[in-house]
Amino acid sequence: MRHGRPEPVAHGGDLDRARARFPNARLPWIDLSTGINPVPYPLPELAPELWTRLPMRSDERRLKEAAARRYGAASPDAVVCAPGTQALIQVLPRLVASSRVAVLGPTYGEHAAAWRQAGHDVMDVADADAARGAHVVVVVNPNNPTGRIVPPDTLREVAVRLDAAGGLLVVDEAFADVAPQSASVVPDLPPSTVVLRSLGKMYGLAGVRLGFAIAQGDMAQRIREAMGPWAVSGPALAIGAAALADDAWLNASRAALDLAAKRLDGSLEANGLTVLGGTSLFRLASHPEAARVAEALGRAGLLVREFSYAPTWLRFGLPGSEAEWKRLERALEAACYAERTPF
Amino acid sequence: MRHGRPEPVAHGGDLDRARARFPNARLPWIDLSTGINPVPYPLPELAPELWTRLPMRSDERRLKEAAARRYGAASPDAVVCAPGTQALIQVLPRLVASSRVAVLGPTYGEHAAAWRQAGHDVMDVADADAARGAHVVVVVNPNNPTGRIVPPDTLREVAVRLDAAGGLLVVDEAFADVAPQSASVVPDLPPSTVVLRSLGKMYGLAGVRLGFAIAQGDMAQRIREAMGPWAVSGPALAIGAAALADDAWLNASRAALDLAAKRLDGSLEANGLTVLGGTSLFRLASHPEAARVAEALGRAGLLVREFSYAPTWLRFGLPGSEAEWKRLERALEAACYAERTPF
Repeated sequence: MRHGRPEPVAHGGDLDRARARFPNARLPWIDLSTGINPVPYPLPELAPELWTRLPMRSDERRLKEAAARRYGAASPDAVVCAPGTQALIQVLPRLVASSRVAVLGPTYGEHAAAWRQAGHDVMDVADADAARGAHVVVVVNPNNPTGRIVPPDTLREVAVRLDAAGGLLVVDEAFADVAPQSASVVPDLPPSTVVLRSLGKMYGLAGVRLGFAIAQGDMAQRIREAMGPWAVSGPALAIGAAALADDAWLNASRAALDLAAKRLDGSLEANGLTVLGGTSLFRLASHPEAARVAEALGRAGLLVREFSYAPTWLRFGLPGSEAEWKRLERALEAACYAERTPF
Repeated sequence: MRHGRPEPVAHGGDLDRARARFPNARLPWIDLSTGINPVPYPLPELAPELWTRLPMRSDERRLKEAAARRYGAASPDAVVCAPGTQALIQVLPRLVASSRVAVLGPTYGEHAAAWRQAGHDVMDVADADAARGAHVVVVVNPNNPTGRIVPPDTLREVAVRLDAAGGLLVVDEAFADVAPQSASVVPDLPPSTVVLRSLGKMYGLAGVRLGFAIAQGDMAQRIREAMGPWAVSGPALAIGAAALADDAWLNASRAALDLAAKRLDGSLEANGLTVLGGTSLFRLASHPEAARVAEALGRAGLLVREFSYAPTWLRFGLPGSEAEWKRLERALEAACYAERTPF
């Protein structure tokens, strides 16, 4: 089952590449190229056994209980823990016979890449209507990078149609922590649906590698078997259980992110960028000379996300401190001033 | 591609089950049911960014360089990092078209289970000769639980035969850290061979979840693509790079494990058990009343590994402190005295 070698998918967070591209950039680098909360959940005390012994079923159970409660899943048995959502994105295409797959785009590139790599016939479609005829439909909700939210009722209709045909709906809710609870399909999970949730983004802990699939019992069991035992590290089990149980932190962080997103929109608009959308973990903006703006920001030590398929778009994550805000605001002014005043 | 739901594979390290089975056991539990070094590699200082940002390619590169040097691989590009060897065991059967697979047994149960789960035709065979006719051959070397070492020259012959037929040899060297370097096939890697190495066992860090596949470039690339980006956590990348570069710790630990294994053999033999083999991370012994011995040890708070397919076998890991040695030695005496003197 060899398939063609695909181009690697472009991602934010690639500081290695930024350093090579801008060797004289102002330091330290401020990485605004991802949608990761810059104010992470504070790590709990980690017992030494979490590192030394094999992860225990009881530790995983605690995490699944916290995740079920937090995301509104019917039962901990509906939750599968994985070392990052990406690990689940890799596995899902191998659980489904060769299919016609529709990915609502433009979106996070790894979904289409993983389904293609596993030999499926993948098409990018603009909306749920255009996905008719597909056996598998993938929706990132809220979408990255646009922030578009497909209403859960629409997703339920898609799921019911797919279910009748033996198909599968994948809803990647990696950024749903900053959307209204009513935007998630987890609490009233449609049939034949797998929802992906992520710890790394909202909780600012992308290095921990922890994500979840939420699905009906039988599908959850199949994903769990594909992941195998001890998929998640001992520290990740403990950190996840603490973070997902902490409602006070979550509420305070959501409020802080909302304010930060408004401040970012203000800065972007003030400097001639047009805010197109996003979530409160990242903002998508357009600028006629986006490449030049990104280049100027890069020289100033600020990494933002460009898109080869949309050359006027830039995606901005949130600065994490007042010092970072100041550097961003000054660099934006300088970049956009330079852009308006060719010399 | 649904397949029958298999029985879960039995494993050591299941303290949850031990607690349920022996609710009145002496505490704290001493888990001797695995082959994990009881004296772990001391954790290095972990920079906060390892938890918060996405794992960096440069961090992974450092780990691959340390692993290539440590294991004697031709190049860092031959090394694939994974969140535990188990994650690789799950993935390999999905990279090979439906095949006849021979697993040299009895051995670690997850190999056969993973190949069966992916729809392959799996047979347990006693030695490399009996594996003729198979398209894929899996060898755990040194073997768990018996300690048998298949000579690398024999493995090379198997690999050359498989390579000519487009097949695959999988050599699981999870316990090769305590075998002579000459027992590993990594330094002179045969064609069409994937070697698995593990951090958790020798370095006593099973909760970190870090393992490696070592293969020729093209096969390594296929495994890497199946794992996807950011497969390994930031802390695991840093811990692995530090541990694998530390030759002094490795040499001292090997010497300590050799002494400990000899002491354990002495205790087992003195109490009427027959040592059958193993490695210096675990010893396999037999006793005509193995189930009764395990039961008595369990009540004394010592968990050892029993084998449903070999009811006279017990596998013992190593105690980690003098207090643990004393509890094991007393419990063995009591268990075997009780066994000899029915009342």
